[in-house]
Amino acid sequence: MITRLLLCFVALGLAACGEQKSTAEQAVEQQSFKWKMVTTWPKNFPGLGTIPEDFAKNVEQMSGGRLSISVYGAGEMVPALQTFDAVKSGAAQIGHGAAYYWKGKIPAAPLFTTIPFGMNAQETNAWFYHGGGLQLWQKLYEPFGLVPYPGGNTGVQMAGWFQKEINSLDDIKGLKMRMPGLAGEVIADLGGIPVQLPGGELYSAMQSGAIDAADWVGPYNDLAFGLYKTAPYYYVTGWQEPGAALEFIINQQALSSLPEDLKKIVEIAIEAANANMLALYTAKNNQALQSLKEKGVQIRKFPTEVIEALKASSQKVVKQLVASDPQAQEIFSSYASFLQQAAEYHELTELDYYKNRRGLNWQDSATATE
Amino acid sequence: MITRLLLCFVALGLAACGEQKSTAEQAVEQQSFKWKMVTTWPKNFPGLGTIPEDFAKNVEQMSGGRLSISVYGAGEMVPALQTFDAVKSGAAQIGHGAAYYWKGKIPAAPLFTTIPFGMNAQETNAWFYHGGGLQLWQKLYEPFGLVPYPGGNTGVQMAGWFQKEINSLDDIKGLKMRMPGLAGEVIADLGGIPVQLPGGELYSAMQSGAIDAADWVGPYNDLAFGLYKTAPYYYVTGWQEPGAALEFIINQQALSSLPEDLKKIVEIAIEAANANMLALYTAKNNQALQSLKEKGVQIRKFPTEVIEALKASSQKVVKQLVASDPQAQEIFSSYASFLQQAAEYHELTELDYYKNRRGLNWQDSATATE
Repeated sequence: MITRLLLCFVALGLAACGEQKSTAEQAVEQQSFKWKMVTTWPKNFPGLGTIPEDFAKNVEQMSGGRLSISVYGAGEMVPALQTFDAVKSGAAQIGHGAAYYWKGKIPAAPLFTTIPFGMNAQETNAWFYHGGGLQLWQKLYEPFGLVPYPGGNTGVQMAGWFQKEINSLDDIKGLKMRMPGLAGEVIADLGGIPVQLPGGELYSAMQSGAIDAADWVGPYNDLAFGLYKTAPYYYVTGWQEPGAALEFIINQQALSSLPEDLKKIVEIAIEAANANMLALYTAKNNQALQSLKEKGVQIRKFPTEVIEALKASSQKVVKQLVASDPQAQEIFSSYASFLQQAAEYHELTELDYYKNRRGLNWQDSATATE
Repeated sequence: MITRLLLCFVALGLAACGEQKSTAEQAVEQQSFKWKMVTTWPKNFPGLGTIPEDFAKNVEQMSGGRLSISVYGAGEMVPALQTFDAVKSGAAQIGHGAAYYWKGKIPAAPLFTTIPFGMNAQETNAWFYHGGGLQLWQKLYEPFGLVPYPGGNTGVQMAGWFQKEINSLDDIKGLKMRMPGLAGEVIADLGGIPVQLPGGELYSAMQSGAIDAADWVGPYNDLAFGLYKTAPYYYVTGWQEPGAALEFIINQQALSSLPEDLKKIVEIAIEAANANMLALYTAKNNQALQSLKEKGVQIRKFPTEVIEALKASSQKVVKQLVASDPQAQEIFSSYASFLQQAAEYHELTELDYYKNRRGLNWQDSATATE
């Protein structure tokens, strides 16, 4: 016993004994945390589901295992649309989904996902991080004990899948269409019947005829759900979700209990995940569109009459929301003035550039020497 | 002495003595690293300089102080265009700049910054992270002991500042214009005289008449340098840098010496910085354009004849590079096939969406109830 004690003494040295307290402090800093993440997507669904999985792995690696996050798909722990409540109650510490799913609880929430004919992905991220958008979002969720963050963006989406062609406004009347958020109200304003369904239920709802048309995301995700088997017409150039922002929500108490380094790790890993999703969709969507064309899908665009009516109704729906809800008024006032500037600037840059670039065959340059 | 020894024994317990080895291991994991970062920008220059500063702060916080990075502006440790050599030699562990500055050392490097009439920011990030671009970039720098990463993007830039209007191709002949990268060769092909200068020297070069025209970045940065005082005409819709990617370069040995958690922290903090720069520029550029207009700057666009000639010359310059350099051939082959797909997809989504959105006055909706 004495021998062992002496060995310990020799190995540690007196200084080590003197530092005992700081070792104890270090132990607190080195405490491990186990979080559960609930999501509104099927487990490992391409992009929407895999990006939160990647985020969890990154956090585990960056924290040297001190913060590990188990990810649950829709229905594994709670149904898709109960993730808000699960994170609010603390049953899960973090969730991934989209703000417009919570419009029944918070009328202004959909403004943080996307606004029909509003900002695209690049503009939305600029507004969140450098235009005051994220502060407004966090203020809106504060009474629920939740902290939201931008959780990825799918880019300009497609207008959706239709059993019949849309040749005039009459074709929207009576149309039962899956359409979440403010765009659902636009469909209603034009005489259609919006239906709210989580993604995983779209295929069977289309197959059974419960709905006549479905908005989901874009070629990459629509292909994954097999929606091309349910309808012949694919309308491109989405008006309804020009830059749909997903969200991470974190239980405020769980976040506060983390030491400062882990808080920063979570925050920065979320920023990286947010950007990575847009890069993924940009890379995958066109490939998937080619596959859909090969499967015989017929690509369509809405006639101008329909675009203009959708635009007018979108403005009406937003005006109604803003007039009925002071929080929506404050948020949309910030959004609209930011969008006005961004749209002017992008007319001279992004839009003009896309047009100027036309007609160049880069593939030809690449193979010039072969 | 014995008393103190006994106290130590009591405080630590036998288990602590038994765990001595793992405490020693922990000490290695907890080792601190101090890095130096050299950049090609003036210290704290808006965006280009502040984003690397933010990155360094984030890494320090995420690592609990185990990796601290001191940031040096151009000329503080080495001149702007010697950052590559400083990081290669290990004098600095990390650098921030742009790949096209190294075209004298690596002919294919400019392909990773931007290609005239090539990808915009969203497409470039998609190619880097999900189209094989980053792997090709890291392979290109490997023989130099350097690991490159995307280090931010400024979005579609402006065409630049001109002393005289450009009404035809004749106005480019003999024009001395600051223009880095492949676009400089395009200017030369059209009879102009491209000049390579770091940003910090543009103002005096324009004032002294050493150059007749200058490409820098866009309103946010051009305003910061006061370039509007040096020329009356501001040409918009850049053709030369549709999505200029900045870069972080890390000394391979310095990176390898980090434990796994710090490596991941650096990687993810870089991803976040890359995205954050684009959001910052998107937010700041339009505000700055309004300020420039108020200062009497005259906004101009190139005539179609000039755009088409720039396009043809750009294709010629890229073909020459590809034909003369097998590495450029491999890289551009990947780039071109990715761009072809992305351009087709963005015609149906981003471009069409920008057009469909026109004419809505969102400000009007925001103030409807006031």
